[in-house]
Amino acid sequence: MIEAPVRPALLDQIAAIVGAKGLTTDPTDLAPWLTDWRGRYHGAAIAMVAPANAAELSAVVSLAASTRTPIVPQGGNSGMVGGATPDATGTALLLSTRRMNAIRAIDPQARTVVAEAGVVLQTLHEAVAAQGLRFPLTLGGKGSATVGGLVSTNAGGTQVLRHGTMRALVEGIEAVLPDGSLYEGLVTLKKDNRGYDLKHLLIGAEGTLGIVTAATLKLVPALVDRAVVWAGVESPLAARQLLLMLEARAGREMEGFEIVPQRCLTNVLRHIPGTRAPLGAPCPWHVLVEFARDTADAPAPEAFAQALMAEAFERGLVLDAAISASESQAEAFWKLRDSISEAERAEGPAMQHDISVPVAAMAQFIIDAGAAVEARFDGTEVAAFGHMGDGNVHFHVAAPRGADPARWPNDPGKEISAFVHDLVVAAGGSISAEHGIGQMKRDELARLSDPARMGAMHAIKRALDPQGIMNPGKLVAG
Amino acid sequence: MIEAPVRPALLDQIAAIVGAKGLTTDPTDLAPWLTDWRGRYHGAAIAMVAPANAAELSAVVSLAASTRTPIVPQGGNSGMVGGATPDATGTALLLSTRRMNAIRAIDPQARTVVAEAGVVLQTLHEAVAAQGLRFPLTLGGKGSATVGGLVSTNAGGTQVLRHGTMRALVEGIEAVLPDGSLYEGLVTLKKDNRGYDLKHLLIGAEGTLGIVTAATLKLVPALVDRAVVWAGVESPLAARQLLLMLEARAGREMEGFEIVPQRCLTNVLRHIPGTRAPLGAPCPWHVLVEFARDTADAPAPEAFAQALMAEAFERGLVLDAAISASESQAEAFWKLRDSISEAERAEGPAMQHDISVPVAAMAQFIIDAGAAVEARFDGTEVAAFGHMGDGNVHFHVAAPRGADPARWPNDPGKEISAFVHDLVVAAGGSISAEHGIGQMKRDELARLSDPARMGAMHAIKRALDPQGIMNPGKLVAG
Repeated sequence: MIEAPVRPALLDQIAAIVGAKGLTTDPTDLAPWLTDWRGRYHGAAIAMVAPANAAELSAVVSLAASTRTPIVPQGGNSGMVGGATPDATGTALLLSTRRMNAIRAIDPQARTVVAEAGVVLQTLHEAVAAQGLRFPLTLGGKGSATVGGLVSTNAGGTQVLRHGTMRALVEGIEAVLPDGSLYEGLVTLKKDNRGYDLKHLLIGAEGTLGIVTAATLKLVPALVDRAVVWAGVESPLAARQLLLMLEARAGREMEGFEIVPQRCLTNVLRHIPGTRAPLGAPCPWHVLVEFARDTADAPAPEAFAQALMAEAFERGLVLDAAISASESQAEAFWKLRDSISEAERAEGPAMQHDISVPVAAMAQFIIDAGAAVEARFDGTEVAAFGHMGDGNVHFHVAAPRGADPARWPNDPGKEISAFVHDLVVAAGGSISAEHGIGQMKRDELARLSDPARMGAMHAIKRALDPQGIMNPGKLVAG
Repeated sequence: MIEAPVRPALLDQIAAIVGAKGLTTDPTDLAPWLTDWRGRYHGAAIAMVAPANAAELSAVVSLAASTRTPIVPQGGNSGMVGGATPDATGTALLLSTRRMNAIRAIDPQARTVVAEAGVVLQTLHEAVAAQGLRFPLTLGGKGSATVGGLVSTNAGGTQVLRHGTMRALVEGIEAVLPDGSLYEGLVTLKKDNRGYDLKHLLIGAEGTLGIVTAATLKLVPALVDRAVVWAGVESPLAARQLLLMLEARAGREMEGFEIVPQRCLTNVLRHIPGTRAPLGAPCPWHVLVEFARDTADAPAPEAFAQALMAEAFERGLVLDAAISASESQAEAFWKLRDSISEAERAEGPAMQHDISVPVAAMAQFIIDAGAAVEARFDGTEVAAFGHMGDGNVHFHVAAPRGADPARWPNDPGKEISAFVHDLVVAAGGSISAEHGIGQMKRDELARLSDPARMGAMHAIKRALDPQGIMNPGKLVAG
């Protein structure tokens, strides 16, 4: 192979497509984008290419296809599984969507927005809010996460209970396929039976089947107001009973239902400045519930929440509860929830698992799997927290005091993760509920997936990306 | 090729898998299943095979794969596009799902049912109704259409406005893939990001990527009561304004919104015994709206409908309206709507087009496309009716009086259909809204689809069914 002369020729051709603004080769400028935000994965790249639009991106991908050059798409670089970090070989182009950041159209009547891949989630929130509308998906990384990344990872977050994941919110997609062709599927049709659903195939494909360049997204009316409840409960089983009661009584008004063990709350209060305990005394477990209304004729959330909590207290489901009386109090409750991971890092190393099981099975799973892990691995402590209403928790296993933070995540960390994943599979669950597979869970997916599913995934990957140039090494082995 | 000795050996092997009950070779018994219910498509088959369960079906498909024997899956044989009728070569096995007809489980708490492919829709309705639940999808062929066919064609019907098509109601799938492997995806997880979504790929794939053997389906509470409105309107544009008003005021309670031109109503009153005009005088256009409630604390549909219609009348959106005062009157209104196609057949030949455009564009499309067709093809009359709330109408073009019923559907019928499809594509719409592609629209899909989409579909078909044995000749050319 004659590597050396090829690269400059390739870069010249790319520069001719995207211009000087769209091409970065300076190592210092590149560096931040070659490591994932948590600093776990590091890679190298020929260059970072940032096309200004889908036509430029299409030309870049065609060129990459004709030269068999790997492409690693990247949005806000805030993924959780190393899905946007290239490998160490330095043979790939890092494809940044940052310059494709137009909000093409907002249609208040149809309640849709057409946003390009590089639009940051918070920017999207603000743009549609100005029209009295809301994009009902949010998550911790909203200041950096982009539409393209959210679509490609089928992102979740804290409002899935009412509004679903990205999959439920994407009405149309535009994408460049691995041969450089442009799939134009932005027009929203409520009914369309013209064969295989490419939209759903691209959602959650982590950039391995093509690069999403824009999406038509569903909007809902802006919130009129909301109330956030922080309640102490005896156990995950009590939380489950509370969830069932609230679903029956307030299914339409409940946006989120999160569970938090006391251990996580203690960590937050210890490490995060400006936080304070929401209840008068510690409780074994806590739940955070958000009630919202988006039409004035729906029940007022605060009064509604008060009545429901009074009933839950009478039925013995909650030990104590506080209801936000203002927007700043609502935000303070959410801050407790959103700071759990940060507080945990201050405590020491932990193995983190983003897992789901059927919603009805989650409470018992938290109890049984937590006990099994702590019994099997001396000195570990399990904290399972998060989206209990979706059957999805972040199942974290903290290292024993004094564990070596450099060594423990590999030994016995990897064995702990395999043990947790085995428990999840045995419960009929998923080893990736909302973060995706990326490079972090690729081998675990291969180990645990049923052969029919894995075989079909490999066949689809080979069919649409026969050269294996699209985000190689992620999700499915090449 | 040595054909003759192969067949008996193959049939012996199949009989060993499915037993005598599962194998039909008698031409008389086979005949009804080799023609589609409308009598448009005719085929031949080696035999009809009816496995009793997924394990038997898996073994049959493995055998077919090893002998390169085509398989044509068939449920109730009530499809609209010849998708379940084998070709004339007689080389295929007709694979009936009729014996896989167990309702495996109903979970009232999770509101799901696991039903096998051969369960008839009406049977499903009755089984879940006995538990106070409802499967919110219905259509004319409910007495024969099966779960497997409904999933594989992403069926629609008259409740899509509120509840979506099958795609929105399928929570899990079990299927036999073209190599005979069993894909087990019945467990319902609200969040699962383990790569490509095979469920959505199989929904609407018309049996070309595998055979659905069972599905986990979403249920909703049983109806408390409903009210059906029949209203006369001046034009499709007025119907559109009425739809917008009702969506704003009754979005949660409105189950269906159908449009009917006077011409269709006249045909029904002329040809269908026991029908009577719903309004005192003819109107240019009509709409049928269903309001329903499934919780006792929702507004009572009849009073609710009366108030809304009074307002619509005041705003000049409706000319006249009747509201069902009893369940039998509600059924009578629906019978007028459901008899349109039958009445049309009594009038003479017509080219039928199951099309969609964006919901907001449908009213103008009906007017413009109708005028364009009638101007271009002398003596034809266009009747567009159906699911206007979903942006989907059945756009029928009736032959001129005295047209030859044997010749006209081909000449100029096919030219008319191509003309209509071109108008649909120009409007950003779909040439198959809910009926699918099958063999009827396969060539039109190839003619009109954008190359990126079609290329990806072919690649996926070849990847999952490299021998081309699964429902060959349907949807995508082999």
